[in-house]
Amino acid sequence: MRQSVVGELAAIQWRNGAVTLLDQTLLPFEEVWIILRTVDEVAEAIRALRVRGAPAIGVAGACGVALAAHEWDAQDTRMLMMHVSMQAEFLRATRPTAVNLAWAIDRMIAVAREAARTNNPAHLRAALGAEVETIIAEDRAQNTAIARHGAPLLPAGGVLTHCNTGALVAAGGDGTALGVIRAAHEGGTALHVYADETRPRLQGARLTMWGLMRWGIPATLIADGAAASLMRAGRVQSVIVGADRIAANGDTANKIGTYALALAARAHNIPFYVAAAMNTIDATTSDGDAIPIEERAADEVTVIGGVRIAPEGAAVYNPAFDVTPAALITGIITERGAFSPAEIPSGK
Amino acid sequence: MRQSVVGELAAIQWRNGAVTLLDQTLLPFEEVWIILRTVDEVAEAIRALRVRGAPAIGVAGACGVALAAHEWDAQDTRMLMMHVSMQAEFLRATRPTAVNLAWAIDRMIAVAREAARTNNPAHLRAALGAEVETIIAEDRAQNTAIARHGAPLLPAGGVLTHCNTGALVAAGGDGTALGVIRAAHEGGTALHVYADETRPRLQGARLTMWGLMRWGIPATLIADGAAASLMRAGRVQSVIVGADRIAANGDTANKIGTYALALAARAHNIPFYVAAAMNTIDATTSDGDAIPIEERAADEVTVIGGVRIAPEGAAVYNPAFDVTPAALITGIITERGAFSPAEIPSGK
Repeated sequence: MRQSVVGELAAIQWRNGAVTLLDQTLLPFEEVWIILRTVDEVAEAIRALRVRGAPAIGVAGACGVALAAHEWDAQDTRMLMMHVSMQAEFLRATRPTAVNLAWAIDRMIAVAREAARTNNPAHLRAALGAEVETIIAEDRAQNTAIARHGAPLLPAGGVLTHCNTGALVAAGGDGTALGVIRAAHEGGTALHVYADETRPRLQGARLTMWGLMRWGIPATLIADGAAASLMRAGRVQSVIVGADRIAANGDTANKIGTYALALAARAHNIPFYVAAAMNTIDATTSDGDAIPIEERAADEVTVIGGVRIAPEGAAVYNPAFDVTPAALITGIITERGAFSPAEIPSGK
Repeated sequence: MRQSVVGELAAIQWRNGAVTLLDQTLLPFEEVWIILRTVDEVAEAIRALRVRGAPAIGVAGACGVALAAHEWDAQDTRMLMMHVSMQAEFLRATRPTAVNLAWAIDRMIAVAREAARTNNPAHLRAALGAEVETIIAEDRAQNTAIARHGAPLLPAGGVLTHCNTGALVAAGGDGTALGVIRAAHEGGTALHVYADETRPRLQGARLTMWGLMRWGIPATLIADGAAASLMRAGRVQSVIVGADRIAANGDTANKIGTYALALAARAHNIPFYVAAAMNTIDATTSDGDAIPIEERAADEVTVIGGVRIAPEGAAVYNPAFDVTPAALITGIITERGAFSPAEIPSGK
């Protein structure tokens, strides 16, 4: 059986009221596992990007809701349910753009409400734990299906990706965009991956390169600004990225820098794919302008690895995501198949 | 009289056979001046980007040729001239893309040949020293004229720039693109500058932000990938950059990342200007495909301030420049005026 990186070290695990998490901020230089036992600890891990990527954030949020039921030894089911609901809203606010977080929390709350009817706190806790396991298993199955649908779409040659979309997903799959790349590679398509380093947090340099090197897929790291010139030189045959939220019309929020790639791909007639699970599609958001864009701290831009790279007091604008209009997207690859943005199903 | 930053600390000075240079790799955190007395030291300073930006590289190259005549106490003019010529070719090879370097070296060699006819080594040395002074004075005058021609072209609002094009030019002017921005600001145009950090060497974060803050011009630092989303949000009314070489047809080589900006500007109908002295226009290069693009070391991408940010052994592609086709350029602003790329004069 194939030993996948994530198979070796599923980056989030739920066991008996504790979450075990591989701290992604320290990769690839240190593999540090942290154990989270409270909602506060989960919220901190999400905000600090110890867990990141839309699907993994969803799983972490689900774990957080389950922990809310476990962190308090309440005997009164109604009191416990109130606590779970409040903590769920606290978790929901940790990152505004990734819709998987809201989706996972809504799902956990629905399960909690149903289980609370039994008036048995132990039952509530068990139901939430079981639902976390289910979400993790579904995430793994979605990744596999996305990879299967997407792999035939990638032409041989250079494939460019941005940020990190795999190898560290919650469950044991290969991720969304990187899962497609891996499946195409293993299916015999001769690919060379160009990985944008992805400033400011360098997820491409740190995580995507690390995963691709472990998988043995040919890969070259570039500064984000070099992508368009690679396209002009004919070295990129496709672009594939993940998504943090897809609006009903197909407009897609993803890591800052994605929109510029989509513009450059269009200028060079290069197909531009988005790989994402159906739960990333938010039918309640009509278009990209309605997607809230998280703005993060200035020091993500001005400090790298503890080293200051800009003058003290420099003003910074640091949006974590941008929106790529549907018109620039060739296809959205989901576990149900690949669709043009105009044809995406309306969610679950 | 206005105290310009560069007025305070002209970044390259020539005095009696020695070059004094402000080391730009240490800015804005340390202001370290180094004294160069040999061609080898000048070549190292150019290659290591202690001096950078096309105009300043030209001046440094000219200084290097003058040093070639000073570093050897030869009494035979023909032997000295041979040494100067060989060292000039050595200097020319330090950076292949910036045409100002080749231009300055050609000019110094012409002066050297003329002076060598007197058969007096002291005269040869004096003539080269005087020519360096002339080049520096011309550079200053060019910057002033570029700023005057360009300032009326910038509309009020956001102006986006990439890399660093000012405040540290050789001579005492305000630079090319930043000179235009400063002149527009001082002429009363309400500008807000967005400065791309400019990976991999972060000249925007380090140098452009430092210069703008000292000048008191409102400025915000962004990751390179954020530029397109600022345009989509309507926050950018113009883009202005420098150039390292402009081909005869107007295709322009500039810092890697410029081409993506030009594509995004076109997609949003935002004017895209290039500010450069006439000596940046290379009539002998027919179009952008003929411009040699310098590829630099991997560790510019994988190491920042001594901190490693990518896995050991990661393959890297690190072109220092890209080419923006003339069709994407609204105007090229020179000391002779602003021209559409189709109308640029054929050089000196």
